[in-house]
Amino acid sequence: MGAKREDNSLRYRRAQSVTTAEDITEKENKARRLQYDKPCHRPRDSLFSWSSQFTNFTGLVNWGFLMLTISGLRLCLENFLKYGIRVNPFEWIIVLTGYNDENYKHEYPSIILLCFSGVPPVVCLLIEKAIAAELFSDKLGESLQIITILLEISLPVIALHLTNQEFNIVGISTVCMVYLILFLKLWSYCQTNHWCRAAKSKQSNSLRRQSLSVPNCKDVDDEVVTGIVQYPDNLKLGDLFYFLLAPTLCYELNFPRTNRIRKRFLIKRIVEVIFGMNLVMALFQQWMIPAVTNALDPFSQMDYIRITERLLKLAIPNHLLWLCFFYLTFHSFLNLMGELLHFADRNFYGDWWNARNISVFWSSWNMPVHIWAVRHVYVPVSSMGYSKGVSAIMVFFISAFFHEYLVSVPLQMFRVWAFLGMMAQPPLAVISKVFEWRLGARWGNMVVWSSLILGQPLAIMMYYHDYALAHMKP
Amino acid sequence: MGAKREDNSLRYRRAQSVTTAEDITEKENKARRLQYDKPCHRPRDSLFSWSSQFTNFTGLVNWGFLMLTISGLRLCLENFLKYGIRVNPFEWIIVLTGYNDENYKHEYPSIILLCFSGVPPVVCLLIEKAIAAELFSDKLGESLQIITILLEISLPVIALHLTNQEFNIVGISTVCMVYLILFLKLWSYCQTNHWCRAAKSKQSNSLRRQSLSVPNCKDVDDEVVTGIVQYPDNLKLGDLFYFLLAPTLCYELNFPRTNRIRKRFLIKRIVEVIFGMNLVMALFQQWMIPAVTNALDPFSQMDYIRITERLLKLAIPNHLLWLCFFYLTFHSFLNLMGELLHFADRNFYGDWWNARNISVFWSSWNMPVHIWAVRHVYVPVSSMGYSKGVSAIMVFFISAFFHEYLVSVPLQMFRVWAFLGMMAQPPLAVISKVFEWRLGARWGNMVVWSSLILGQPLAIMMYYHDYALAHMKP
Repeated sequence: MGAKREDNSLRYRRAQSVTTAEDITEKENKARRLQYDKPCHRPRDSLFSWSSQFTNFTGLVNWGFLMLTISGLRLCLENFLKYGIRVNPFEWIIVLTGYNDENYKHEYPSIILLCFSGVPPVVCLLIEKAIAAELFSDKLGESLQIITILLEISLPVIALHLTNQEFNIVGISTVCMVYLILFLKLWSYCQTNHWCRAAKSKQSNSLRRQSLSVPNCKDVDDEVVTGIVQYPDNLKLGDLFYFLLAPTLCYELNFPRTNRIRKRFLIKRIVEVIFGMNLVMALFQQWMIPAVTNALDPFSQMDYIRITERLLKLAIPNHLLWLCFFYLTFHSFLNLMGELLHFADRNFYGDWWNARNISVFWSSWNMPVHIWAVRHVYVPVSSMGYSKGVSAIMVFFISAFFHEYLVSVPLQMFRVWAFLGMMAQPPLAVISKVFEWRLGARWGNMVVWSSLILGQPLAIMMYYHDYALAHMKP
Repeated sequence: MGAKREDNSLRYRRAQSVTTAEDITEKENKARRLQYDKPCHRPRDSLFSWSSQFTNFTGLVNWGFLMLTISGLRLCLENFLKYGIRVNPFEWIIVLTGYNDENYKHEYPSIILLCFSGVPPVVCLLIEKAIAAELFSDKLGESLQIITILLEISLPVIALHLTNQEFNIVGISTVCMVYLILFLKLWSYCQTNHWCRAAKSKQSNSLRRQSLSVPNCKDVDDEVVTGIVQYPDNLKLGDLFYFLLAPTLCYELNFPRTNRIRKRFLIKRIVEVIFGMNLVMALFQQWMIPAVTNALDPFSQMDYIRITERLLKLAIPNHLLWLCFFYLTFHSFLNLMGELLHFADRNFYGDWWNARNISVFWSSWNMPVHIWAVRHVYVPVSSMGYSKGVSAIMVFFISAFFHEYLVSVPLQMFRVWAFLGMMAQPPLAVISKVFEWRLGARWGNMVVWSSLILGQPLAIMMYYHDYALAHMKP
């Protein structure tokens, strides 16, 4: 019996080498199923083996978000156990006004500066009107405009240096932000009016040469063009203040308008702004302040492992705060303003979360500034005959300067960390492009997110370290 | 001029109400582009608004995994800063053998028990041979088999209770696992042989009735069936030990075989096993032990908030360890055994990570046990005339019993936490199915992952709490 079986298995092996593997499997399975041992095995690969060609791992995405939620919940609990509840919605009133500070003189310089921010636009408008009425020459008028807006942006710095008042940090930050936005808006306003004037004089020159009657725009499309405002009809206080309030930095004579205010949309945005502001404040008080405070010691001792641990610890609340801030500002608040003002262009941000590299990120996360930079710096500098590279560097330097402005002026420390942070972006952009080209868009996107998550807390720690050393030594 | 403009805007508004909104937009844009103010705005929605119909958020998946990595890195660093490096690859030798313990008698009862595990299969084989040779009646033989395998599974418990030796916990855990696997394999071996005998006697009875010659299987498919082993030719020591080593719990007379050992595949699995074992050990020493130790105080004080925080803290290393353990055991180790033994069926796990509910999870994460339970408990009980529900409950109770066996015997504490954990699965399955039906497969999958991530540390803490109270009081 044994000998016979060996003979059989030999024959079987010979058969195996002749027929294809699949044939064998099928025949063998058929024969095995004729047995009485209820066979339950068949040849197949494990799912993780490449040869199984199994690729459905969608459940792992759920796993990732669940792990993130659980880690987040635990961090929250740990935070509450360690620090107790530190959220105090009224603290912000105190911080804003300095109401509780006994040495405080109750002069509110920030509020005075904020109120004064209405004056420069009026000055600009008067100069524009004077140019339009040909009281000034174009050149003199435009020089006056430049002086006005340069004075406007320097005002917070001048106020800080001339007066000996203690500025409250939240107050002066708000002032700087408002003055910077006003600066960009007035720049756009003056330059757009300049374009209109230039085009008009060119047109009237060419008309004089061709001896034709002045063409009426209404001929082109009577129905619609009747509603279009033309220079210098736009030089009105109402028009200027609409632009100053509108969620854009680029002036236009005729903004696209919506027909009606969507009430449901408006209410949602209002709720988001109110709820979101409180969330940001709570996160800041409960999570960010202890994390920053705890990180100071390792930073002053330059203990690199602890610095890394603290930075990573700081990175998460900082990043979440930034995300909240982004949504609140660019979606909730700007849409709220747009809806109230019938402003139809809601292109406040692109899909930067899918950005393939850092250049794409910078050109899509903050659309008002991006469009402003393209329209008022990049294109004019390019059209003056400079190369694209020079124009890009120009945009870039202006951006870096204003980042520094927004940080250094409120902190009253003229360090260069924010400027250097911006200067680190071009090499980072190259790195992310290399990742994108070599490893695909997913890895480029990873580099964008990493720089966002890790870069910010680094800059914050730099400033906080210097600030704490300067202000808290005694 | 002002009056004229108002008139115009009135006409414009009238036009707006007549033509459709899109018409207006197009005409208006055309007219606006005729202006000299270089307009850059056009009506559009923000991407987060529903009306924009923008849905590409793939970058957020990258964000999720990056946040997870960063949190993980920080936890790692924090752990090293808190506890230093606790990884010691040689500690396991000490734990396994108790070599360093001064009170230890150097009797190694676990190793004796492991060596003894070769005896029950031989007894089973001898009984099978005796039945096949008709030395015993079928009934007597099968009763003897049942007694043998019941004795086999009770041996670790008997050894623990009769001898007064201090069993090392890792040693006795290994013993329990090996004896449980042996039990399941021998059950399958005896039952499969029983099926073959029953079918054969039935066949010979029917043949006797029909007075036909015994049919030769070779007639069906000469080439292949010649290699097929038939009862009782399978009753050989080599065949039995092949089955005992093979990565399956279900006995078959003719396992599907591979033609060759893929060397590259084999080397990968060996590297994975060696590297993975060290990773698991390191994670366990460095992360799991401190987390469990730290969690004891809140548990004994029944401080629920701290218990929750500790559980969440424990959940992450525990879950990662479980994932490593799963991959190591079910992919690396079982594939390694399969490759070495030319065993072709590598269906060791399904895609449980995509499981839509808890029932799907339980029937796909551990395929050897699942297939065994279906083939040797569910189907036989069903074919005995019981309903599907009764068969399922049967499978379920056996599973719960063996989970408890694997935990209680090594810890020498007959608590019911593991049993209760298993008993919680049917209600959880119902909950996950409700989630699946109401909210879609994604939410069912979330429930599966949650129960996996949070359920295990709870059970571990229960046992550790009791164990620590019993062993560490003085």
